[in-house]
Amino acid sequence: MHPPLPLPVSVSTIATLIGGELRGDGERLISRLASLESADAGSIVFLSGRRHARAAAASLAAAVIVSPELESLVAAGSSRILVADPYLAYAHLSQWMAAQLAHARASTQTDAAQAIDPSAHIADSALIGEGVQIGPGVTIAAGASIGAYCRIAAGCSIGTDARLGERSVLHPGVTLYEGVRIGQRALIHASTVIGADGFGFAPSPAGWVKIAQLGSVLIGDDVEIGANCAVDRGALDDTIIGNGCKIDNLVQIGHNVRIGEHTVIAGCVGIAGSAVIGRRCMIGGGVGVAGHIEICDGAIIGGMSLVERSVTEPGFYTGAWPLQTHTQWERTAATLKQLPQLRQRLRALASMVGLTKDPA
Amino acid sequence: MHPPLPLPVSVSTIATLIGGELRGDGERLISRLASLESADAGSIVFLSGRRHARAAAASLAAAVIVSPELESLVAAGSSRILVADPYLAYAHLSQWMAAQLAHARASTQTDAAQAIDPSAHIADSALIGEGVQIGPGVTIAAGASIGAYCRIAAGCSIGTDARLGERSVLHPGVTLYEGVRIGQRALIHASTVIGADGFGFAPSPAGWVKIAQLGSVLIGDDVEIGANCAVDRGALDDTIIGNGCKIDNLVQIGHNVRIGEHTVIAGCVGIAGSAVIGRRCMIGGGVGVAGHIEICDGAIIGGMSLVERSVTEPGFYTGAWPLQTHTQWERTAATLKQLPQLRQRLRALASMVGLTKDPA
Amino acid sequence: MHPPLPLPVSVSTIATLIGGELRGDGERLISRLASLESADAGSIVFLSGRRHARAAAASLAAAVIVSPELESLVAAGSSRILVADPYLAYAHLSQWMAAQLAHARASTQTDAAQAIDPSAHIADSALIGEGVQIGPGVTIAAGASIGAYCRIAAGCSIGTDARLGERSVLHPGVTLYEGVRIGQRALIHASTVIGADGFGFAPSPAGWVKIAQLGSVLIGDDVEIGANCAVDRGALDDTIIGNGCKIDNLVQIGHNVRIGEHTVIAGCVGIAGSAVIGRRCMIGGGVGVAGHIEICDGAIIGGMSLVERSVTEPGFYTGAWPLQTHTQWERTAATLKQLPQLRQRLRALASMVGLTKDPA
Repeated sequence: MHPPLPLPVSVSTIATLIGGELRGDGERLISRLASLESADAGSIVFLSGRRHARAAAASLAAAVIVSPELESLVAAGSSRILVADPYLAYAHLSQWMAAQLAHARASTQTDAAQAIDPSAHIADSALIGEGVQIGPGVTIAAGASIGAYCRIAAGCSIGTDARLGERSVLHPGVTLYEGVRIGQRALIHASTVIGADGFGFAPSPAGWVKIAQLGSVLIGDDVEIGANCAVDRGALDDTIIGNGCKIDNLVQIGHNVRIGEHTVIAGCVGIAGSAVIGRRCMIGGGVGVAGHIEICDGAIIGGMSLVERSVTEPGFYTGAWPLQTHTQWERTAATLKQLPQLRQRLRALASMVGLTKDPA
Repeated sequence: MHPPLPLPVSVSTIATLIGGELRGDGERLISRLASLESADAGSIVFLSGRRHARAAAASLAAAVIVSPELESLVAAGSSRILVADPYLAYAHLSQWMAAQLAHARASTQTDAAQAIDPSAHIADSALIGEGVQIGPGVTIAAGASIGAYCRIAAGCSIGTDARLGERSVLHPGVTLYEGVRIGQRALIHASTVIGADGFGFAPSPAGWVKIAQLGSVLIGDDVEIGANCAVDRGALDDTIIGNGCKIDNLVQIGHNVRIGEHTVIAGCVGIAGSAVIGRRCMIGGGVGVAGHIEICDGAIIGGMSLVERSVTEPGFYTGAWPLQTHTQWERTAATLKQLPQLRQRLRALASMVGLTKDPA
Repeated sequence: MHPPLPLPVSVSTIATLIGGELRGDGERLISRLASLESADAGSIVFLSGRRHARAAAASLAAAVIVSPELESLVAAGSSRILVADPYLAYAHLSQWMAAQLAHARASTQTDAAQAIDPSAHIADSALIGEGVQIGPGVTIAAGASIGAYCRIAAGCSIGTDARLGERSVLHPGVTLYEGVRIGQRALIHASTVIGADGFGFAPSPAGWVKIAQLGSVLIGDDVEIGANCAVDRGALDDTIIGNGCKIDNLVQIGHNVRIGEHTVIAGCVGIAGSAVIGRRCMIGGGVGVAGHIEICDGAIIGGMSLVERSVTEPGFYTGAWPLQTHTQWERTAATLKQLPQLRQRLRALASMVGLTKDPA
């Protein structure tokens, strides 16, 4: 959007970039985007809530991106840039900063990588779009299609007939199995695996008989997937991840799972086969989702919960034992196992003393 | 088993292939194996339970694989192939379909990969069996042995003296550490790591002292392991996985674990060091198994359970907090912590009112 | 420390190596370090606790490393080496044994790998220290720095300006993103990813807007990280792992996490963004740590627990549902949901019968 500018830039330039209203000195020079705690006189920071009031008052930042409501929390000496949503402004500015840094680095490198490294193994029938960068040792199999301006880092492996949309980025060691289709502007982190076989076997007297996984994986546009994830191909139909989904590291997505648009999934989540997750859901870290259930649009699942049944109403759901000292836990866990009997006993007692309206 | 046939094939041909009894039109042509929901006039489907009755009645499939008991659920217009176990017949047919598709694809490719890619790094002392395919950038170290007809995809790394049995398949980026031994017909998905160091350290005043992991990993025949798994080498003796085990993605198996034959382990499971798991067990997704415990043959563990003690009787075991709304959870969790006191109080009350036979 | 000795070696030599006191025959020859159960007449073993008394009495080992207190448990025919801490002596001896085995293997290999494989892609501006070994297909980007005597196995990818300290080892397929800094003597197992983007997005009407992750990862000296882990780079400041930390397989560490020195983290743990973990903590397998909380020095967290709030006192903490048969679990889980009502009812009953001192 904006041409690269050599850092530092003035506070007033940043105010223009993020569409904010400048208050105070606009001539100060900004070299970096920092946290409130680590900011110095060359830093710009953002303030997004009252709970950071103390850090804001103590911050050495040259300038603060802040909402009008919280402007009074900013240390007296700092310039302010007023915006309606400081966190969103921070997101945009962080992308701009990253682009400046990448540009500066590229211009100082005398040994920049080639667009398509000669050690890459690209089948003759693969289609490689305009402006694609391909790193050392990448393998692209027959019939695969790589959209314009994609960047594929060292050691990735793209299977037969796989398709990757324009301006997508694969970090090192990503594997796309045969026939996987991924939309535009995907960002996939290192060693993630898309399209391995779903986990399906039929029992037989001689052992488990493999069910060949004939479906594929279909991923929409603007999807980010973290490092060391696995998204399995479908058994018959495809596994589907909607536009705009964001998935953290070490997430397992089973075969024939369908995930709606703009859902975010934190790290270490496991989603079993054929589960259907709605749009704009938020799934906390370490959650397990059972197979063949549905989670409705807009549901929020707290960390480490097991979603063992369908969730049909939007809301915030949790299921996880609260942390205790181990000694307390041992006592609580022992008592928990007697809970059905305790309830029985309570009923008997209530009946004896004539407490008849039974709330439990 | 069966020579490749160009698709489509007739329903009667499929009936012969899977050993079923044809009912209705056998001349219809089948191009694909589909789900009940996505089937069209060129599809064959399978029906394996009454809970799919509605989908079966509405399916557009040309033919249905079904048991005699459920034949009446099939839509009137579909041909039927009767078999005793439709799910097992589906598994066999899926493998046959996959083979046809692979054959058709190979015959149209004008730029097929070479058997042993010239960019592979193969030590002179490595033994490579007949008919082995080795992809670009694969590294095979000194003394390693690769059985006949193995396929090793791009970027795999096979350590010194490692052994891989005949007809095994490694997907891209698999690492076998030094000395790992894997049986015949293994299928290992991308970026899985076999034989990394077990997690062992001795405390000392200067910090943790590493315990060198001198054992290895021994994996039987017909084992499938998913993507991004880790199976650690033993400390002194070997880590052992029996014949026919099936392991899903993102599973961690600690050092000196022993797993019996035909056990299946779903995704995101972690098994701590020296645990012993029996034969034909089923371990649900996200389960944790504590170290040095035993799980007997035939046990089934529900998803996200912690197996914190040995399981000595076959059966179905579970331990996971049921999902609640977050508000309900907060209340329940707070009360849970008081559970031992609640029990005490209940005892006191029972004693006061003379309820002496104490069920809890 | 000690020059390699051809195996076997005498028991008295081992006693000298580990600084122990020899009892019994010192001339016996030792070829391997074994477990009590698998030992034979060429084996040395260690005994570290009374619970192994039976195995010790039955062991065929030629020699046993043991504390003076437990010497009487050793089978009559075995030589003994007395040390104060047998487990620590075992750790040291295991390292020595591993070195002998590696030395013996290297001397028999006629096709040893080259120091820097010619297929590695090393940018001209990368700094490679003395004695570094680099495997096939490794990529080292511009400005990266690799300390002396590092060993980097096949297929690793080292990003721009990343730094790896002296004598560090990367197993196959490790990715270090741009700017990651790792100390001396690191040991990182296969397919682990250090420095991928932290998981940060700002909501906007058009969907999630990525927050560029401008921080990096800073890892101290003597850190071991298992296979298929992910350590994310910081949003603004760095993610930090202290000296001497030991991290098992499949662990996810979010952006801006800070982990103190000598903390150990077992497999399948997920630590959410900005969590702060103290020094010398022990985090059990499968634990989840919520974002923005703190765990104090010396805390121990039991397996599969969710640490949903800060832990401010050292101690042993747990939170995990105890395993039950599924039938019992169904009953307990149903009752659990009524727990707040049961407590209400108990209060009502207590008040009716005049039990006024309410313990709950």
